[in-house]
Amino acid sequence: MRIAHQFAPPMSALLAGLPGITEAAHIPQEHRWALPTDVDVLFVLHGEGEDRDAANHAQRPEGWPGQVRLVQLASAGADDYPPWLWEAPQVASASGTTAIPIAEYALAVMLAHAKRLAEVTLKPGDAWPDRQLFINQPLALLHGRTLGLVGLGNIARRVGQLAHAFGMTVIAARASAAPSPDPWISVAPLDEVVARADQLVLAAPITPATQHMLNGERLARMKADAHIVNVGRGGLIDQAALLAELGKGRLWASLDVTDPEPLPPGHPLLGHPRVRITPHISWSNPDINKAILQRLAENIRRLGAGEPLLGTVS
Amino acid sequence: MRIAHQFAPPMSALLAGLPGITEAAHIPQEHRWALPTDVDVLFVLHGEGEDRDAANHAQRPEGWPGQVRLVQLASAGADDYPPWLWEAPQVASASGTTAIPIAEYALAVMLAHAKRLAEVTLKPGDAWPDRQLFINQPLALLHGRTLGLVGLGNIARRVGQLAHAFGMTVIAARASAAPSPDPWISVAPLDEVVARADQLVLAAPITPATQHMLNGERLARMKADAHIVNVGRGGLIDQAALLAELGKGRLWASLDVTDPEPLPPGHPLLGHPRVRITPHISWSNPDINKAILQRLAENIRRLGAGEPLLGTVS
Repeated sequence: MRIAHQFAPPMSALLAGLPGITEAAHIPQEHRWALPTDVDVLFVLHGEGEDRDAANHAQRPEGWPGQVRLVQLASAGADDYPPWLWEAPQVASASGTTAIPIAEYALAVMLAHAKRLAEVTLKPGDAWPDRQLFINQPLALLHGRTLGLVGLGNIARRVGQLAHAFGMTVIAARASAAPSPDPWISVAPLDEVVARADQLVLAAPITPATQHMLNGERLARMKADAHIVNVGRGGLIDQAALLAELGKGRLWASLDVTDPEPLPPGHPLLGHPRVRITPHISWSNPDINKAILQRLAENIRRLGAGEPLLGTVS
Repeated sequence: MRIAHQFAPPMSALLAGLPGITEAAHIPQEHRWALPTDVDVLFVLHGEGEDRDAANHAQRPEGWPGQVRLVQLASAGADDYPPWLWEAPQVASASGTTAIPIAEYALAVMLAHAKRLAEVTLKPGDAWPDRQLFINQPLALLHGRTLGLVGLGNIARRVGQLAHAFGMTVIAARASAAPSPDPWISVAPLDEVVARADQLVLAAPITPATQHMLNGERLARMKADAHIVNVGRGGLIDQAALLAELGKGRLWASLDVTDPEPLPPGHPLLGHPRVRITPHISWSNPDINKAILQRLAENIRRLGAGEPLLGTVS
């Protein structure tokens, strides 16, 4: 099979070494959505930053999809790709390959929030605080508290599993009416999940149905000291409504995704005392290339064998 | 039974409400180690900061221990109490009551280190970093990495349980030759534990045998990028040797305990780029008073019934 990819040129040698691949070509960065139609497989990654618009508005290649049988996305999310990509016979995402690092990030910010790490870490010149201060204004626990999950895909399930180990009660809102996949997670309506959560982790895809699902009304239902963690997409939260709640001294947030990305300089979420912003890095881990190449190789094998692919996107 | 305590005067009312207590008296702060000998139970807390020396050198009360049958410590550690305290018929610590919050703190700093939280959190004016940076210099994982535990008491076991949920390999060095209490923890010699650990959590008591157990030789055996978490006592680490290793660009450390406490202003560990110092706060949690009073009440019940006490210290 022939494959073309959007990554740096050295990727070609890696791809050429995969079983079943006879030829691997590089698509130049400056024309990255002028996708070739004379290959079997395309290996692509959505735009970020200024490339985002370019991806969403890229022109449909002439004769698309031509001989292309599979478009393998290198991302878990299927947003910010050209809309005509879905005319290819099969499109598969890397969904699931980054559940472990993203769940670890979610627990990292949940714990950093509970233990007020930024505040309690001493800087040179800081006075050593009195023990009584930490009796009167104690650090929080995960143990015994309630985690709300929005979405119940691989990431949310992994967060739920870890939170359960910490002794949290785990409740989740999901789009489908399917029962909970894990005995320690109870499925509940979204309005109930937001109202009961001490920590709320958003791990849903962005669709017209999920856009601004955490709107002003739902934010107002949340506990005053609840902590929102967004590892899904920025558009899940109505950020103007969030800023209004924060302005009342309510809620805390750790956002690895925002709307837009990057946030423009001077945006009120940047440096807000109740908000931690990280630049969409929760997926980062030492095994990322290996995991995505394994997904690609497995899907190429399945394509050749006529088996159902992993991570198909409709 | 009559009880006297070293806490703020309102504690007397709480203690007087416990079953079996007929009288509760407050010991004035300015003479806190002039302990009465005409009560059945003493409820005390070791010194911190400048009080530490006062506790270690407090004069033995005349006629000590007199009618005292039980000294209940409000701390998990039994250090920094007057040495004559142990002449009382029974001394019990609060060991175990803070295992959950301290283990959560350990996971919080382990994850904050792995995800480089302080570095990746955007401050106003920071440039939005390129995605490629987090492919080239990826965030670390707990999953698949090795946790070394020094000590295998309640805190270490809870840390091991949580680390196991994250998919870490857990190895532990303990003072006794007893087998591992948990199937997911392997017991190994200390020299092996320090050499294999990606993250090393110290949760041993301080004794002549454990003083500076993490000495220069053992620190030099550690992996260059290993992260040391100390939630035991500052004296477990030879801090001068640690500073020497750090000066070579080796090791990272999160220290909730130091030697001495507080660290003097300008101490080289404060503000060191490879070190996080927190002021002995990992025990802090909203349920702390409740948990310690429950321990006291249970030990008073056991004392009355002639049963073995919880957390006895010899």
